[in-house]
Amino acid sequence: MAKQKKQPRPKAETPKGFRDYFGAEVTDRKAMLDTIAEVYHRYGFDPLESSAVETVEALGKFLPDVDRPNAGVFAWQEEDDGKWLALRYDMTAPLARVAAQFRNDLPAPYRRFTMGPVWRNEKPGPGRFRQFYQCDADTVGAPSVAADAEICAMLADTLEAVGIPRGDYIVRVNNRKVLTGVLETMGVGDDEDTRNAVLRTIDKFDKVGEAGVRELLGKGRLDASGAYIDGVGLTDEQAEPVIAFLTSKGTDAEHTLANLRAAIATSSTGEQGVEELETIASLLDAQGYGPDRIVIDPSVVRGLGYYTGPVYEAELTFEVLDDKGRPRQFGSVAGGGRYDDLVKRFTGQAVPATGVSIGVDRLLAALRAKGRIGGGAQGPVVVTVMDRDRMVDYQRMATELRQAGIRAEVYLGNPKNFGNQLKYADKRESPVAVIQGSDEAARGVVQIKDLVLGAQIAEEASLEEWKSQPAQREVPVKDLVKEVRAILDRGK
Amino acid sequence: MAKQKKQPRPKAETPKGFRDYFGAEVTDRKAMLDTIAEVYHRYGFDPLESSAVETVEALGKFLPDVDRPNAGVFAWQEEDDGKWLALRYDMTAPLARVAAQFRNDLPAPYRRFTMGPVWRNEKPGPGRFRQFYQCDADTVGAPSVAADAEICAMLADTLEAVGIPRGDYIVRVNNRKVLTGVLETMGVGDDEDTRNAVLRTIDKFDKVGEAGVRELLGKGRLDASGAYIDGVGLTDEQAEPVIAFLTSKGTDAEHTLANLRAAIATSSTGEQGVEELETIASLLDAQGYGPDRIVIDPSVVRGLGYYTGPVYEAELTFEVLDDKGRPRQFGSVAGGGRYDDLVKRFTGQAVPATGVSIGVDRLLAALRAKGRIGGGAQGPVVVTVMDRDRMVDYQRMATELRQAGIRAEVYLGNPKNFGNQLKYADKRESPVAVIQGSDEAARGVVQIKDLVLGAQIAEEASLEEWKSQPAQREVPVKDLVKEVRAILDRGK
Repeated sequence: MAKQKKQPRPKAETPKGFRDYFGAEVTDRKAMLDTIAEVYHRYGFDPLESSAVETVEALGKFLPDVDRPNAGVFAWQEEDDGKWLALRYDMTAPLARVAAQFRNDLPAPYRRFTMGPVWRNEKPGPGRFRQFYQCDADTVGAPSVAADAEICAMLADTLEAVGIPRGDYIVRVNNRKVLTGVLETMGVGDDEDTRNAVLRTIDKFDKVGEAGVRELLGKGRLDASGAYIDGVGLTDEQAEPVIAFLTSKGTDAEHTLANLRAAIATSSTGEQGVEELETIASLLDAQGYGPDRIVIDPSVVRGLGYYTGPVYEAELTFEVLDDKGRPRQFGSVAGGGRYDDLVKRFTGQAVPATGVSIGVDRLLAALRAKGRIGGGAQGPVVVTVMDRDRMVDYQRMATELRQAGIRAEVYLGNPKNFGNQLKYADKRESPVAVIQGSDEAARGVVQIKDLVLGAQIAEEASLEEWKSQPAQREVPVKDLVKEVRAILDRGK
Repeated sequence: MAKQKKQPRPKAETPKGFRDYFGAEVTDRKAMLDTIAEVYHRYGFDPLESSAVETVEALGKFLPDVDRPNAGVFAWQEEDDGKWLALRYDMTAPLARVAAQFRNDLPAPYRRFTMGPVWRNEKPGPGRFRQFYQCDADTVGAPSVAADAEICAMLADTLEAVGIPRGDYIVRVNNRKVLTGVLETMGVGDDEDTRNAVLRTIDKFDKVGEAGVRELLGKGRLDASGAYIDGVGLTDEQAEPVIAFLTSKGTDAEHTLANLRAAIATSSTGEQGVEELETIASLLDAQGYGPDRIVIDPSVVRGLGYYTGPVYEAELTFEVLDDKGRPRQFGSVAGGGRYDDLVKRFTGQAVPATGVSIGVDRLLAALRAKGRIGGGAQGPVVVTVMDRDRMVDYQRMATELRQAGIRAEVYLGNPKNFGNQLKYADKRESPVAVIQGSDEAARGVVQIKDLVLGAQIAEEASLEEWKSQPAQREVPVKDLVKEVRAILDRGK
């Protein structure tokens, strides 16, 4: 302490784009993660918790710019060997690393689920954080699209388990191979830039519609803000297969598949893609997952470059109000697909894999927006302190309550101002306050104050029915647990 | 993909000092965290999950060397504003930041618990990782040592709740102020270097005993490896109060407190410390926490510089075998104390706080070493694939089992080699395999194979009793769920 120079005080602030979670925010998320884990587990997936830190080399795929190894991730260099390490930005890259590293020990197929925070070194925005939760399940080493169908079914089950009723969500399935077939038919299958531009355009179909996509594939388009968006530069004839593909969703799976067959013409990759979708549709149908839960939908693209086959996405279909009070669809809360090449990066051997990632924080936000979450938490019974030198008595009461399984604590702030103690109990949403002054102690009694009832009386003091119900009463010390429990049970 | 240069394959490896956790390792830890959370919650603590990333400025305390802000932590610099960020290295520094940042919104006292990984940029060693779990509970804004006593009681309850029986652990309590009193009595209260050297020496009392401490406080000592450890350089007279302090543990609290009073002589800080210990002892005694669970023990120092009052530590007292097969005490699994100055760093106002941190991974290791954990997990029922083109039937069976709440999956690897499917079921520790070829399908039956019983029969094939129990039998398809459940129930 002695010789240090006086420094300015540090700022108490969460780093930009990060946040803290308090109380019910933590328990609500935990309850959701527990529910999801239960469904994943029942489907035969085993838990994995990989290191939050990876070598940048292992994450490499998303770091094309070698001079700036920390683009997109939080990265730092080891002091001894100069290696770059980084926080994981998703759960798939670590899984690929684990599957390669432990390939001789893990069962094949390896079915794992995992949940935890991931970190992205991106510009934060409203409701957009640099640390958030993902909850993934993947099957590594399963070539059959039965694995994809199963994950779609599991996704539907999971959404219902966490409280999204049937009808309020839809799982949409597509296949990258169909898209590849369409691109081959267009003659742009080998031109990476054009292909990516077309993919990005398809991804906007939901927003800009058929006419908008036509413009964006051609010369370009004025967007809603008045800015001109450059087009891909295709001719109308070239663009036609994309339009046919995007509008191929029919009244049922059979219809959609027939339209897709037409859109891919003679491409063999496309044909394989349509056949896979057909298999997925028949598997899901047999298991009872109809189009009210899972549909084939050609407009699903999924941004990530690594998908090689089926892709899927879960959307919430109800509307919520946005910041400006306008209703809008809640949108995507989960997505995934088949990525057959990720493990190959490490081992040289292709390993077929497929998996889904649930954006837990978005899903929580959706349930909160619908009022379907929260409200279950209850504050502790607060034993107040009337006589500072009788802490032993108060602690004994709290201990007795706890031993009966009741959440309880003694007020541990400065007890001088009794009003502050009741304010504290109020802030903690305590159901009951226990009060014992020296007079009550001498008589072997204790006051118990029903704070929930007390608040109701305060709010509706004019109503006759409340007047007959005293919110505070005196009971023998030996009945403390019994009487407190009676109040808690009444509140249920 | 096109124009990229061919790069060498990345190595599939966990970064040095990090590890991955699989299956039961994850579920065992989760079960322990859930149990601890339940106890903390019952004591009135509320959950907090703060950001894993902090500004280095906020963590600052442990980074004395300003030129190397990443000493001890994993740190990196923000690109836009040049700020240094770092992964939290414990849960206390983030709590101090949160308590300062949200001081106007949080209840006072603020009682929070938190659990999650922390990261240390240290040299890894055997069993020593750079990412590990901590599980903390703290009361911020409680001046009374009743808060410290309560945390000691909670620590005892927690250890019993996770499966450490009474007698196998001890919570030891001391007070920094007593130590300060001793140092004042020695005349080194203001000499920081000597003071720290004395503290480090006291911390070795358990290892080197009274004679060893005498040597280390004086000229120095040859340690077991033959290396010479320099001493603090005190005279025998100067060292005497430390020895008196360290050997002050009596047969009961009263005895110990009397000895401590003698050791601190006339120091008023020391006297305050002894009085606080007296209060803690009487509170715990009144709540029924006797010396079989919590004792006053002057040899507890706790390394961290920030403690200002009571310090406490939980030790497991049973022996485990070390790497070389030698029995040794398991040692400390949790510790904490009062730190009244951490929030002050941010606000300038002293905020009294006290809290405990449980080393969850060490506690798990202890329970594993005693065989008190694990074994509860069960693999999924595996529906094998005899006819590749009847996946629909197999998936339907798995769906039916899952809908009855039974963990189940269809084998999704290449089904060609049936032996591989049974090997897979074995590796997954599946209790039951379901088998249906086209012949069985035609007859509307299915084979169910009891894999647990099968393994027992294989092991003890000579015993008559097994021969009458067929491990595999044929049942009608409609009875699948019922028959599988019967096998699972038998295994319980």
